Amino acid sequence: MSKPLNIGMIGYGFMGRAHSNGYRKVSHFFDLEYRPVLKAVCARSADKVKPFADQWGYESIETDWRKLLERKDIDAVDICTPNNTHAEISLAAAAAGKMILCEKPLAMNAPEALKMTEAVEKAKVPNMVWYNYRRVPAVTLAKQLIDEGKLGKIFHYRANFLQDWTISADLPQGGAGLWRLDVAAAGSGVSGDLLAHCIDTALWLNGGIRDLNAMTETFIKERKHNLTGKVEKVGIDDACTFMCRFGNGSLGLFESTRYARGHKALYTFEINGEHASIKWDLHDLHRLQYFDHRDPGILRGWRSIHVSDGDHPYMGKWWVPGLQIGYEHSFVHQIADFLEGYAKGKPAQPDFRDAYRTQLVLDAILESARDRQWVTIPG
Amino acid sequence: MSKPLNIGMIGYGFMGRAHSNGYRKVSHFFDLEYRPVLKAVCARSADKVKPFADQWGYESIETDWRKLLERKDIDAVDICTPNNTHAEISLAAAAAGKMILCEKPLAMNAPEALKMTEAVEKAKVPNMVWYNYRRVPAVTLAKQLIDEGKLGKIFHYRANFLQDWTISADLPQGGAGLWRLDVAAAGSGVSGDLLAHCIDTALWLNGGIRDLNAMTETFIKERKHNLTGKVEKVGIDDACTFMCRFGNGSLGLFESTRYARGHKALYTFEINGEHASIKWDLHDLHRLQYFDHRDPGILRGWRSIHVSDGDHPYMGKWWVPGLQIGYEHSFVHQIADFLEGYAKGKPAQPDFRDAYRTQLVLDAILESARDRQWVTIPG
Amino acid sequence: MSKPLNIGMIGYGFMGRAHSNGYRKVSHFFDLEYRPVLKAVCARSADKVKPFADQWGYESIETDWRKLLERKDIDAVDICTPNNTHAEISLAAAAAGKMILCEKPLAMNAPEALKMTEAVEKAKVPNMVWYNYRRVPAVTLAKQLIDEGKLGKIFHYRANFLQDWTISADLPQGGAGLWRLDVAAAGSGVSGDLLAHCIDTALWLNGGIRDLNAMTETFIKERKHNLTGKVEKVGIDDACTFMCRFGNGSLGLFESTRYARGHKALYTFEINGEHASIKWDLHDLHRLQYFDHRDPGILRGWRSIHVSDGDHPYMGKWWVPGLQIGYEHSFVHQIADFLEGYAKGKPAQPDFRDAYRTQLVLDAILESARDRQWVTIPG
Amino acid sequence: MSKPLNIGMIGYGFMGRAHSNGYRKVSHFFDLEYRPVLKAVCARSADKVKPFADQWGYESIETDWRKLLERKDIDAVDICTPNNTHAEISLAAAAAGKMILCEKPLAMNAPEALKMTEAVEKAKVPNMVWYNYRRVPAVTLAKQLIDEGKLGKIFHYRANFLQDWTISADLPQGGAGLWRLDVAAAGSGVSGDLLAHCIDTALWLNGGIRDLNAMTETFIKERKHNLTGKVEKVGIDDACTFMCRFGNGSLGLFESTRYARGHKALYTFEINGEHASIKWDLHDLHRLQYFDHRDPGILRGWRSIHVSDGDHPYMGKWWVPGLQIGYEHSFVHQIADFLEGYAKGKPAQPDFRDAYRTQLVLDAILESARDRQWVTIPG
Repeated sequence: MSKPLNIGMIGYGFMGRAHSNGYRKVSHFFDLEYRPVLKAVCARSADKVKPFADQWGYESIETDWRKLLERKDIDAVDICTPNNTHAEISLAAAAAGKMILCEKPLAMNAPEALKMTEAVEKAKVPNMVWYNYRRVPAVTLAKQLIDEGKLGKIFHYRANFLQDWTISADLPQGGAGLWRLDVAAAGSGVSGDLLAHCIDTALWLNGGIRDLNAMTETFIKERKHNLTGKVEKVGIDDACTFMCRFGNGSLGLFESTRYARGHKALYTFEINGEHASIKWDLHDLHRLQYFDHRDPGILRGWRSIHVSDGDHPYMGKWWVPGLQIGYEHSFVHQIADFLEGYAKGKPAQPDFRDAYRTQLVLDAILESARDRQWVTIPG
Repeated sequence: MSKPLNIGMIGYGFMGRAHSNGYRKVSHFFDLEYRPVLKAVCARSADKVKPFADQWGYESIETDWRKLLERKDIDAVDICTPNNTHAEISLAAAAAGKMILCEKPLAMNAPEALKMTEAVEKAKVPNMVWYNYRRVPAVTLAKQLIDEGKLGKIFHYRANFLQDWTISADLPQGGAGLWRLDVAAAGSGVSGDLLAHCIDTALWLNGGIRDLNAMTETFIKERKHNLTGKVEKVGIDDACTFMCRFGNGSLGLFESTRYARGHKALYTFEINGEHASIKWDLHDLHRLQYFDHRDPGILRGWRSIHVSDGDHPYMGKWWVPGLQIGYEHSFVHQIADFLEGYAKGKPAQPDFRDAYRTQLVLDAILESARDRQWVTIPG
Repeated sequence: MSKPLNIGMIGYGFMGRAHSNGYRKVSHFFDLEYRPVLKAVCARSADKVKPFADQWGYESIETDWRKLLERKDIDAVDICTPNNTHAEISLAAAAAGKMILCEKPLAMNAPEALKMTEAVEKAKVPNMVWYNYRRVPAVTLAKQLIDEGKLGKIFHYRANFLQDWTISADLPQGGAGLWRLDVAAAGSGVSGDLLAHCIDTALWLNGGIRDLNAMTETFIKERKHNLTGKVEKVGIDDACTFMCRFGNGSLGLFESTRYARGHKALYTFEINGEHASIKWDLHDLHRLQYFDHRDPGILRGWRSIHVSDGDHPYMGKWWVPGLQIGYEHSFVHQIADFLEGYAKGKPAQPDFRDAYRTQLVLDAILESARDRQWVTIPG
Repeated sequence: MSKPLNIGMIGYGFMGRAHSNGYRKVSHFFDLEYRPVLKAVCARSADKVKPFADQWGYESIETDWRKLLERKDIDAVDICTPNNTHAEISLAAAAAGKMILCEKPLAMNAPEALKMTEAVEKAKVPNMVWYNYRRVPAVTLAKQLIDEGKLGKIFHYRANFLQDWTISADLPQGGAGLWRLDVAAAGSGVSGDLLAHCIDTALWLNGGIRDLNAMTETFIKERKHNLTGKVEKVGIDDACTFMCRFGNGSLGLFESTRYARGHKALYTFEINGEHASIKWDLHDLHRLQYFDHRDPGILRGWRSIHVSDGDHPYMGKWWVPGLQIGYEHSFVHQIADFLEGYAKGKPAQPDFRDAYRTQLVLDAILESARDRQWVTIPG
């Protein structure tokens, strides 16, 4: 019989739903020593958080996150609030000895992230950051192939995260649902929101970045601000591109934008190695494209691997070959790995330190774009 | 506050999991008057069904389905057992005044299906059959486009359901996990298992079939039987093809097999109309292909519609544009529609009578293949 | 230095252009003992054929094909006229001792095709029929893979040829450019025009067909006839479907139509074998799709082979890897093979006898559709 | 009756074949006032150029290009020699009053290109550079859509040209077939060879580039040199990436490499506009991908336009809808446009001045990569 692990969630937006669904489902599909229990959900407005708690079956609500941290019956806090609140809550949670699962990007900048990292490491609390795409089975399979040496020496890594939802100049910034457009709440635009995912995956699959050179753009310079009601300067980056060199000698090329008409969530990456190459696309997340030069000459071609077999990562837990899973399952997998890591004393990644490394790259991007020059990544 | 609707499930195999997941999830994503409550699950072996009940949170177990039907606290029975048991259980459930959700194909043959249909209609119990693919959003979108007249007069309907999991002659037949290969339990092979889905969709999208001509094949003539331990004749069809004419004058072409190397669950259909055509493929179930001849000439092309926007069927309930759902969601949608239909007094389809019409086509297929001649569908 | 082989072409329509282009190009890319020389082109109207001769560099014109056959300076005649003229011209050409390259389908029916076949065999003149798709490199590669046993035992063969150009009821039948809609000139509709290609490829790749069952339809029953000016009954099949069993035990499924909105020339085939499967599509003719079950489990997937490498069939003669060729090259290849076969005394296929076998299937299709029953293919 | 325009070609390598094929074919498909006549081909070795002349039907050969330029019967010279010879030959040809068709990149660097441009402009000789991809019908269609305003304001332009043929360290540099790896002959590596194409297309479709920042890499530092027999330093760039801003405010991202395993000639570009986006890929050059946000919401999707209809650019000259053309046809189209422009007194583009502008970008790339800083494009 599994043991309870009591979750206290802070925030109830899009990510609150995605995580709650993960906590709800994980025990039905994974055999784990611990099962998450939805103990409490916290938000400033009781009126708003109560229906959410009812819908997802949280046992209680809180309207002050400090209260939540004081509760003895909470083992882990899940931080799903805007970026500018992650540090304060995390530091307090670490001090309270709670496990922490924090949304990405970890912090508003690298120094803040470092402080948070040192706090959780000092407090020795299990910690994890929600870079969920590592747990899409096709992406995990990519990691497995790279670790097995299937690709050989890596020459190129390229990744995009393209969206098209902010093209209208009439879209306001700030407030519920739109805090990602408000630099005060988000810290940055597409770099922290989208490229952060690409960078996390890249560091995981291809190792550290040595130096980079970035370009950013804000296409719409002013937007009405929902919190002030006034037209205000837009402080975030609408688009961000950077080129870099990895520590392993390969070249990197990254791009992100919210002005790519026709793409909703086109997170793609491609890795070219000496022997083989792989490609992946979030729009068809259940497939991995693979080219192996060691195939017989006349039969070489890009293989479209439908990642749904029982021996593909995580897929033995779900349905039968040929039946695809979707976006939400990446969260279920991350929770399963967190719980299993906790049970075995081998913390799941990415943890705060991993996310701090991503934050160093994010800071370097903004610095490079501002100063129009190459920036070396520390460490 | 939603009202409980108590479910008693019979069977706990692959479909038992898929339905249980649906019952568990539906209330988190859909606002409904009724919420399913997992009251009991029933199977002959208590040792086997107990862990299943624990994993999914069923409140109790039963080992005799007649006992389950006697319980006052059960509102609806969900029949997930092999095909040869559907009739007996359904007739008893109707007599007991239970709502019935029955796995497909409804029955072993059309006369049996008719008897069941008449029983539920006489008992006036809500009834539904699990032809779940109607509720894949891209398929529902196809229905919507057809109903709006986007395609115009229909000329062609073609559908395939191709798999490759029984190619090895060493695979036995019968028993747990393999009853679909045993004609005594399944009634037929790919026709009832796979083509039944294609036919249900076709009747829904394109109306009734007038007459058909079929060919079946059993590639592996004998397999070891798991229940007897002996090598026995294989009674099911391994592959089945038929051509037909619909009542609306269009031509149909259907194929199903478990010997199509490289396809796990390639359920595809394509409909060609005067003005537009559509295509769908279960392997990439989140996309609908659409060609509209009324587009300006130089810009005509097949559109790959990523069915993930808020105004696509069901998708407003899930995540955000660009983030795909998977196979299991079709069951969630069907449960949501069943519950909503029950609340509003407008039963969701396909009901037993719809499934009986599919069964008439299935019977005609086997008859035509046996007699090597055209067969007219009654009604 | 290569030797001349003098061509006399009869007809100057679409196929006349395609063949002329082939004759013109072949010597630039293939090193052959013989080079085609465009000696004469023949058509009833001198006014119409003269500009064609000028454009393509034919040395002379004729307006009576019997005159062309009498000329000593003609080695080979190429018959590009409507189907109902193939027999008469071929018989005369054989009698005149000319090599014959005849457009497909070879004849109006199988008895006519047999007579022609016996005539060329008796006259011992090299003969070939323009089933050009065998020479698309991806299709030739498919043949090579099958012959090497890569697919193992074959279970399924399916092919489509879908077009959408006759959907409008206003399109007339008969006369220049539209003789394919006139049963008197064409003999049949999509079966002889399109399915004939599918059948030729199938017989080549998968061997003979044992028996079949067909369905045909004429959606538009009457069209204005260009030759009479009157609305007349349409005698051709607009759509044709058949299912069959091959001599090797595999099942076949074929379909052709001119009412599939969105498809211009969608000739596709797929072959499923015990070990591997292949797919091809004329709309992307430079690619072959290949799935090999012997690949390591987690890496199995459909490979998209870009057939453009030097070791792919014919491709060493063209450009460099990655640069695709098109439709017209299939004719160049067929001419190259014809010339090489002639030089080496090993006639290229398909010859008249091969095309007669295809005609037997075409006759069986029309018979089966008319009588609504299975028909066994002779031989 | 068309008038002759006498061609003298210098060089007989890969491009010599591609151009010769174009000259041979153009009059068969396009009705033009002038027809190219293959008067002479020139190369240092008579032994090598003679078989080429025979194969393609050149009337004569020369072994000294200066001799060729002196001939009165030559109207136009076509320069297909390595990059380091373009300037000298072009200057002399301009002085001799010959029309010039020069392979790309035009020169070794921008100053050289400017000198050549000024020479042809002063001499008033028709001049053109073989950036042939503008004439792929799908690319020409892209231009047409942009000019019609279909895309609206442009936000992003990205292009790649990826190959994988120099990954082996055993591949030598220099000499016949490998001069592109020798910096002395080529001037640069992938930037001049591959990115030059991407830049030409970009300037044509999206206007001038304001400034850029580039990164280059030479993965294999030393290779055996075929001309010296010694292992020598590799002077070319194996990979090159740059980001830029266009004059119209859009952002650009370009990449080229010969180390992208699995890609033979993956020249792709994508343009994201306010209303619509387009994508193209040389590996499937007969298709254009198009997304239009003005389509009805639920029907929006990327359209795969099979560019083969009669109203698509150039396609009315070839076969029928659905039948694709290939790589070589881009040269035929360019020749047709050159001849038509000459006849009408409206020179076809890109001319030397266009190619000089591309060369300015190429110089800026190498300068930026060397100095690791942003470089502004002159003009």
